[in-house]
Amino acid sequence: MEEALYESLVSLVETKQYKTLQMRLNEMAYPDIADFIMQLEDEKMRVTVFRVLSKDISADVFAYLDSDSQETIVRMITDKEIERLMDELYVDDAVDFLEEVPANVVRRVLANTDSETREIINRFLEYPDNSAGSVMTIEMVELHDRLTVGEAIKSIRRTGVDKETIYTCYVIDDKRHLVGTLPLRRLILNDEDVPLTEIMSDDEQLITVQTLDDQEEVASIAKKYDLLSVPVVDKEQRLVGIITIDDIVDIIDEEATEDFEKMALLRPSEDEYLKTNVFVLAKNRIVWLLILMVSATFTGQIIEGFEAKLATIAGLTACIPMLMDTGGNSGNQVSTLIIRGLALGEIQIKDYLRVLWKEIRVSVMVGVTLAAANALRMIILRHITHNPATDSVILVVCLSVCAAVMVAKIIGCTLPIIAKLLRLDPALMAGPMITTMVDAVSLLIYFGFANLLIH
Amino acid sequence: MEEALYESLVSLVETKQYKTLQMRLNEMAYPDIADFIMQLEDEKMRVTVFRVLSKDISADVFAYLDSDSQETIVRMITDKEIERLMDELYVDDAVDFLEEVPANVVRRVLANTDSETREIINRFLEYPDNSAGSVMTIEMVELHDRLTVGEAIKSIRRTGVDKETIYTCYVIDDKRHLVGTLPLRRLILNDEDVPLTEIMSDDEQLITVQTLDDQEEVASIAKKYDLLSVPVVDKEQRLVGIITIDDIVDIIDEEATEDFEKMALLRPSEDEYLKTNVFVLAKNRIVWLLILMVSATFTGQIIEGFEAKLATIAGLTACIPMLMDTGGNSGNQVSTLIIRGLALGEIQIKDYLRVLWKEIRVSVMVGVTLAAANALRMIILRHITHNPATDSVILVVCLSVCAAVMVAKIIGCTLPIIAKLLRLDPALMAGPMITTMVDAVSLLIYFGFANLLIH
Repeated sequence: MEEALYESLVSLVETKQYKTLQMRLNEMAYPDIADFIMQLEDEKMRVTVFRVLSKDISADVFAYLDSDSQETIVRMITDKEIERLMDELYVDDAVDFLEEVPANVVRRVLANTDSETREIINRFLEYPDNSAGSVMTIEMVELHDRLTVGEAIKSIRRTGVDKETIYTCYVIDDKRHLVGTLPLRRLILNDEDVPLTEIMSDDEQLITVQTLDDQEEVASIAKKYDLLSVPVVDKEQRLVGIITIDDIVDIIDEEATEDFEKMALLRPSEDEYLKTNVFVLAKNRIVWLLILMVSATFTGQIIEGFEAKLATIAGLTACIPMLMDTGGNSGNQVSTLIIRGLALGEIQIKDYLRVLWKEIRVSVMVGVTLAAANALRMIILRHITHNPATDSVILVVCLSVCAAVMVAKIIGCTLPIIAKLLRLDPALMAGPMITTMVDAVSLLIYFGFANLLIH
Repeated sequence: MEEALYESLVSLVETKQYKTLQMRLNEMAYPDIADFIMQLEDEKMRVTVFRVLSKDISADVFAYLDSDSQETIVRMITDKEIERLMDELYVDDAVDFLEEVPANVVRRVLANTDSETREIINRFLEYPDNSAGSVMTIEMVELHDRLTVGEAIKSIRRTGVDKETIYTCYVIDDKRHLVGTLPLRRLILNDEDVPLTEIMSDDEQLITVQTLDDQEEVASIAKKYDLLSVPVVDKEQRLVGIITIDDIVDIIDEEATEDFEKMALLRPSEDEYLKTNVFVLAKNRIVWLLILMVSATFTGQIIEGFEAKLATIAGLTACIPMLMDTGGNSGNQVSTLIIRGLALGEIQIKDYLRVLWKEIRVSVMVGVTLAAANALRMIILRHITHNPATDSVILVVCLSVCAAVMVAKIIGCTLPIIAKLLRLDPALMAGPMITTMVDAVSLLIYFGFANLLIH
C-alpha cells in the first residue's frame, strides 16, 4: 500500500471522519482494505476501521486478514457483532480463522454462532489437516437434475448471492448424489427449455475427490483438468462441498513452500517467517542439524582412519572440502529435479530405469568435464603457489571427483524414488540422507584412490 | 490412465472401429484424451486418433498435448487440417505450441493461417519470454460501457462460445480503454435494465498489468486479489488481452520449479526432466559445479596454510566435514526461508533489520545447542573409540560450531536481501555464494580458534 494513501486513510481515522473513511474504503478492493488494517499498529484503531466498514463487505475483508488481526478484532467486538460476522463468513474462511486462534476465542465465537453453523464448523474442524474436507466450502450451487436451463438460472439468481462461486454448478438427484457438473457458461449459452441432464458433464467426465483425500491430490486434479472448483463427495458419492480455485492456488504455494523447507532441512511450518517467534524457528531448525551433526561422526571416523596418510602427503587434506562440496552439489541437483518431477507428476516410479540410465550418461559427461577442469586448476595452482601437489595427488583428486560425481548422481536419483516407493515423502527423506551418504562415499572413494595410487 | 481403458481404446484403433472410438473419446475429458494420444508409441496411430476426434473438440485436445505430440501431428496432417486447427485454437495455446516446435514447422503452420491470426501470432511471438504479453490470450469478453445488463447478456450469448472465459467481462469505452471489470456473477444477479457502468468495478479497484510485466508479477496479483483472469493493457490503458487462472496456475508452478532449480545450482529449464536430452541436462548442471569447484580453491588454500598444524594435532582434520556441513546447512535453512518469503511477498527489503535481529537470536539458540550436543558427542566418542581428541580440541570444535552457525545464519539472511536490493535474483545468487562464503568463513573460524587455544 502506498505511503500517501495509507497516511490519508489514517488521518481520516484520527480525525474521526468515519463517513468519508467508509466511502473511501468502499472503493478499495478487499485485500487492500485488509492490508490497511494489518498495517495499523494500534489495536483499537484496527477495530475502529473494521467497524467502519459497510456491513456487506466486513466479512469479506475479515477473510483476508491474517490470524493475529482476526484475533484482535474478535476479542474486541461484541457478541452480537461476532454473531453477524459468523453468519456472513463462508464456512471455509470461518474454519481457517478458528484453526489459528486460541481455544478461548474459539469457544466464544462458537457460543455466538447459530447451532446449525456451529455443527458444520465443528465437523470441519475435525477433518485432518491438509485433507480435502478441511479446505472445502459448503456454499456451492446445487441444481436438481429435473430442472431446465431457465429454471436453473432462476434458482441461481435467487440463491447465488451467498454462494462462494456460481461458475460451476453441481447437479444432484433426490438423494443428493452428485450426478453431473455444469459450467455456468454452458447454462448461459443454451436455450431456456433445455433440460440440465442433456447438457451437464456426467459419467466418465465427472471428476471428484473424497473428504479425506490429501489437498495435494486436489490441487493436481484441478491443474490437470483446469477446474475452477473441485467437488468433494463422501463415500456414497453424495456432494458435501467444493474447493475453489483461490484455495487451490494457496494449496499449490503451500505445498511448494513445504517442499522447499523440507529440502532445506527445516521442519515445515505453515506460518509466515516474520510472524513465527524465534523459539519456534530455532526448534524447526535444530532437529535436522543435530541428526546430521551426529551422522557426520561417520565421515569423521573415515578421516581419522586415514589421518596418518593425510599428515604425510601434502595437498590431500586441502582437497577434501572441494570434493565433498562437488559431490554434495551434484547429488542435490539430481534429487531436486526428481523430487520436483515427482511432486508435479512428471516423473513416476515406473520411470526409474529411464531416469537411472539418463543419470549415468549425464554423470559421465559432468564427471569427466569436472575432472579435466580440476586437473587444469591444480596444475595452474601448482605453478602459481609452488604448492607441492604431486602428479599422483592430482590424479587421485581428479579420479575421485569423477567417481564422486557419478555416485552422487546415482544416489541422488535413486533415493527420492525409493522414498516414493515406500510411500515416504521424497522431499523429507532425500535431502538429509543424500548429504550423509554422498559425504561418506566421496571420502571413501578419495581415500581408496589415494591408497591405491600413492605409496 | 488405467491399463484396461487404454487397452480397450487401442484395440478400437487397431480394429478400425472409428465410430465407436469417437463416441468413447467424446465421453472423456480433454486432458485424458490427450494422455491417451501421448501414451501411444506409434506416430501414425497418434495422428489417426487425432483425426477421429470430433471437429469441435480436436483443438481443445491439441492444446493439452505435449509439444512432441503436437509436432508429430502437425507434420502428418494436411494443410487444410492445419488451417482449421489454427482457426479453432485459442491464441495463447497456438503461441505456446509454436514457441516449442522447429522453425520449418512454424513456417508451414503460419502459411496455413489466415492473415489476421498470423499477424496476431507474430506479435505474440515477439513478446519477451515470461512477460505478461507472452502468456495472455485475446479471446476475452469485451462489453461496451453504454450497454445495460440485459444487452450485455445477449452479447455474451452471441459471442461467448469462442471466448476463453466469460466469467469476468471487461468494459471498454469507444477507444478501447479499459474502464471497468464485471464478473458474470454480478451480471446474472442484477436486473436487465441496469446500466453496466453502475455495477462494474472501476477506478481504484481496476487491477491491470502491462504487456511487458513479468509473469511472476501477474501471478502474485491474481493470488492477492483472487482473480479468475487478469486484464493486460498497453501504455494507453487500452485492453489488449487477458491471462486466465489456468495459465496463472501453470506460472506459479513454473516459477517455483525455477527457484528449486536455481537453489539446487541448476540452470533453470522449462522442459520436463524426462523429455530433456542428456547433453542439455549435463550443460545445465556443469556451469555452477565448475564455478564452485574453482571457488573451492579458497578453502583449499586456507587448509593448506594450516596443514602443518592439522598434521600434528590429532582429531582436528576429522571434524572439518562436520563443521562445513553444519555451517552450510544452517546457512541454507535461512536463505531458503528468506528466498521463499521474498518470492511470495511475505518478506520485503525493508524488513531486513527485523530479519537480522530474529536470526541473531535464533542462531545463538541453535549454535549453543549444537555446540553442547557436539561436546557430548565427542566426549562419548572419546570413550568408545579411545580416540585421542584432547579437551582443547573438543573446546575448539564446539566454539567453532557455535560461531559457524551464527555466521552462516547471518550470511544466509543477508545475501538474498542484498540480491533483491540490487535487483538480482535472490534464488540464483544466494545458493552458490552462501556455500562458498560459509565454507571459507567456517574454516577460518575453526583454524582461528585452534591457533588461539591449542599450542
